[in-house]
Amino acid sequence: MRMSKLFARTLREAPSEAEVVSHKLLIRAAYIRKLMAGVYSWLPLGWRTLRKVEAIIREEMDASGAQEVRLPIILPADPWKVTGRWETYGELMFKLKDRHEREMGLGPTHEEAVTPLVAGEFTSYRDLPVNLYQIEWKYRDEFRPRFGLLRVREFLMKDAYSFDRDEEGMRASYAAMVEAYRQIFGRCGLDYRVVEADPGQIGGDVNHEFMALAPIGEDEFVYCENCDYAADIEAATSRPPEPAADGELEPATKIQTPGRSTIQAVSELLGRPASALMKCILYDAGGRSVAVLIPGDREVNDDKVARAMWPAPVRLFEDEDFAARGFVKGYVGPQGLPADVTIIADHSVRAGRNWVTGANEVDHHVSGANVDRDFRVDRWEDVAQVRLGDPCPRCEGSLRLAKGIVVGHTYQLGTRYSKALKATFVDEDGTEQPYQMGCYGIGLPRTIAAVVEQANDEAGIKWPKALAPYDAVVIPTNMDVPEVVDAAERLYGELGSSGVEVVVDDREESAGVKCADADLIGYPLQVVVGKRGIQAGKVDLKVRATGVRTEAPLDGAARSAKDLLGAAP
Amino acid sequence: MRMSKLFARTLREAPSEAEVVSHKLLIRAAYIRKLMAGVYSWLPLGWRTLRKVEAIIREEMDASGAQEVRLPIILPADPWKVTGRWETYGELMFKLKDRHEREMGLGPTHEEAVTPLVAGEFTSYRDLPVNLYQIEWKYRDEFRPRFGLLRVREFLMKDAYSFDRDEEGMRASYAAMVEAYRQIFGRCGLDYRVVEADPGQIGGDVNHEFMALAPIGEDEFVYCENCDYAADIEAATSRPPEPAADGELEPATKIQTPGRSTIQAVSELLGRPASALMKCILYDAGGRSVAVLIPGDREVNDDKVARAMWPAPVRLFEDEDFAARGFVKGYVGPQGLPADVTIIADHSVRAGRNWVTGANEVDHHVSGANVDRDFRVDRWEDVAQVRLGDPCPRCEGSLRLAKGIVVGHTYQLGTRYSKALKATFVDEDGTEQPYQMGCYGIGLPRTIAAVVEQANDEAGIKWPKALAPYDAVVIPTNMDVPEVVDAAERLYGELGSSGVEVVVDDREESAGVKCADADLIGYPLQVVVGKRGIQAGKVDLKVRATGVRTEAPLDGAARSAKDLLGAAP
Repeated sequence: MRMSKLFARTLREAPSEAEVVSHKLLIRAAYIRKLMAGVYSWLPLGWRTLRKVEAIIREEMDASGAQEVRLPIILPADPWKVTGRWETYGELMFKLKDRHEREMGLGPTHEEAVTPLVAGEFTSYRDLPVNLYQIEWKYRDEFRPRFGLLRVREFLMKDAYSFDRDEEGMRASYAAMVEAYRQIFGRCGLDYRVVEADPGQIGGDVNHEFMALAPIGEDEFVYCENCDYAADIEAATSRPPEPAADGELEPATKIQTPGRSTIQAVSELLGRPASALMKCILYDAGGRSVAVLIPGDREVNDDKVARAMWPAPVRLFEDEDFAARGFVKGYVGPQGLPADVTIIADHSVRAGRNWVTGANEVDHHVSGANVDRDFRVDRWEDVAQVRLGDPCPRCEGSLRLAKGIVVGHTYQLGTRYSKALKATFVDEDGTEQPYQMGCYGIGLPRTIAAVVEQANDEAGIKWPKALAPYDAVVIPTNMDVPEVVDAAERLYGELGSSGVEVVVDDREESAGVKCADADLIGYPLQVVVGKRGIQAGKVDLKVRATGVRTEAPLDGAARSAKDLLGAAP
Repeated sequence: MRMSKLFARTLREAPSEAEVVSHKLLIRAAYIRKLMAGVYSWLPLGWRTLRKVEAIIREEMDASGAQEVRLPIILPADPWKVTGRWETYGELMFKLKDRHEREMGLGPTHEEAVTPLVAGEFTSYRDLPVNLYQIEWKYRDEFRPRFGLLRVREFLMKDAYSFDRDEEGMRASYAAMVEAYRQIFGRCGLDYRVVEADPGQIGGDVNHEFMALAPIGEDEFVYCENCDYAADIEAATSRPPEPAADGELEPATKIQTPGRSTIQAVSELLGRPASALMKCILYDAGGRSVAVLIPGDREVNDDKVARAMWPAPVRLFEDEDFAARGFVKGYVGPQGLPADVTIIADHSVRAGRNWVTGANEVDHHVSGANVDRDFRVDRWEDVAQVRLGDPCPRCEGSLRLAKGIVVGHTYQLGTRYSKALKATFVDEDGTEQPYQMGCYGIGLPRTIAAVVEQANDEAGIKWPKALAPYDAVVIPTNMDVPEVVDAAERLYGELGSSGVEVVVDDREESAGVKCADADLIGYPLQVVVGKRGIQAGKVDLKVRATGVRTEAPLDGAARSAKDLLGAAP
């Protein structure tokens, strides 16, 4: 491709609305152009990169045994009403009516289309399992599209749907997809973690997020410095501490703590660390009072409390609840709580003794409070928010916190959709059974944005080879010197015919402009042909990812370029 | 691929609504499934064929120098209102509003999106020409979708848009696209004609339809038996006949023709052929009367009359016009018509003399009427409907009539969209100039349907190799004979590893079912492995397109299969 012809005009400035680096660079480097909020046109460079991601996904999906299909973008409303998602998606789904006033939606995902399709074809247990996927544009009417390709209203998605005879089959299909996703994101050059996601309150919905590490990511998660363990903040756990060794139990003593209703205030007053204090946090669970005990230096994870009390709806006490139920706000402790209060203690409470906690009396606390002797615990649960440095639940490593961009998501759906849509197969015993389903998504534009967030510098994008729109650019720096132009054209030809995807920057522009554009666009390799070099029979090669420059003799330059590309990330 | 796994269950019966063979076969052979009226899901077989067409188009478009981009499907309404097409498309365009009540449409075509895009990037004459294309789903809310893939509401389209500095450039871009289209449809194995389409009343809008020959086609056109000439019925011309040689001019004689107001009646009364009579057909052109002369055995082409009289609006006389303007319906002739009547004669009138025509008097005609002596001709024009057997306007061949399916359409748009959208570049002289545009479309699903209409028999589809979802199927006819299964698996492996796209039909089905499915699905080659053959060390090979069967020794069967495939259409 000749840069003089390529439909790509780079910009010196990013649009003022661009807040994140991937947005800025993909616009400036002429990969995408905004048509309207959250809707982009893909220019030739962007389209080539998008198609490279698409090809990687297709190869790995095919290798996993999944079969590619293509489902319509315009979908009839009825199945969505049956599953209830016509309502729950609400305004997030683009809705329209055709000329005959039939309601339709633009597909945000395709369970409602693929499930009846499979039920119409694969009607016997002998047909199963099957996993169908497509790579097609999806639509979500985000309230506030932003961050370039990270939150858009039209996006290319690989969505796959597995159909199995039983749960064991579903789990096997799921495992195959997780493995395919690892291959895909690895080939895209992403630094990512497979994150256990909040299983929801029922607890049965196993699902994982594939999270690309990025400081601008909107999702926080926890991962082990040592092993594969990773989970989102809602789902993360840490290894419970060892129970406290036997030791002297102090007597429980009421102490005056006037006006000291917070952990910090009591800690300061007594000169003892927050970890020596015990919080007693009150919740309402469907009308019942719940007291949650946790050391003073930790936070309770409300989602975990909610799961522990499911199906009762759980909420924190409000001010009026304290008075109405006889609690003293700021001075609550577990001692002497009535039997109709459920007392849940986090596992970390086992690791301490002689707690300072509320005395259930204004301006008073108790010191030397101990489990069983001074208060009961109805249930031991993991209800703590994980924090930096906590021990990994799986190994001896410790946990770290990070932010990430969700580039993929896998779900074990079970029979949620097949039951709702009455999609069944005939099992070996002749009974009609709902399919056990899984669904699996990858956002292609997000994947590209995540790669750019991870691979850039102040000059531009540093593509991994697998995603670069072209492998290399040949830059003649002096268009008025025929030897330079001739050598560049010769290298362009040699590289192209040896299978390198190459651009020659044949524009009548300065060397500075061309090199800046090459850095911005992010070709993995730059071949710079200059006047002085050619006089010495040499060209310069620059690997964009490392910044390393080498010289090569003109005659062997194509070979050297291929070698450098072969070794580039 | 194993047939036991392939998401494809063939059907014995086509749905009752399927009227045309491509619809019936593509449903029965499990290529597509209907989701709602005019909206189809593509199953793995169909999707593979669609992607083969897509790959052919992409290769030829890239080879032509066009650059691939991707424009959004959801489009803001405003540019469509500027060009007026928000109104003219009307209900044919799917329209919706987003959550902020902004109006949008689903793209039926993309002039309104691509024109501002180019104007934002390629702002100088030095940047031009450029031709951008995409292969993306398009939306048209057809009132009555039908004929399977031939009239749908969602369809994959290759649309390209060329931008040039001047008309000469536009014509060169246009010629390159026509050539690319010839390559594309040739590679798809289509029997097609490049048909000159009705240029519209202005006459400037050069455009061509690529018409696949098919008796069920909805468009009639004319083509030469001998050369490349082809045109749709509205635009077709034939070579004007030679003027009549000099000869005796009979005297003009009024004759009684009581009650004979039609060509047929006069012809019968006088015992003379219709070709000896001359029709005089009256039109109103913006208030002016127009008399069109044509031999009695020919029909006037109203579109041609309209073009001849443009910009006046043209309509046939209605009954009241005759009386009001002093004409005698059924007995009109050109003799003595007043000067304010425009008399247009078709060129074919030159070829005759001594015409029988109306006497402008009830129940009377005139015989021996001759041009100039008895009536004047204001303009000689081509206003005849072309008919079977007419001489070709370009060569010595004669014309045929056919019906076709429009699979591609190319247009010289000129500045229609660039002017409306104020899309300009800076020309060499510093002036702002609107782009000279062309647009070029190919319907991929229609192309597939047209191929199936041309390549089928009562048993199923006979794909050309280029479009078949797989090249070959290996059919073990006796699954209970290990030698048969082993030989089939071995051939399946050998063919696959030598680059043949191959299916093995490993289902526990009868030989009859498997062979019927193979014919229906239409793999170009069938490799049948049977018990008796294996005992003799042989397999059967069948080329689907020709029906020719050959035997090959098992050991060399993969080689023979590749050779047969190489020679297949």
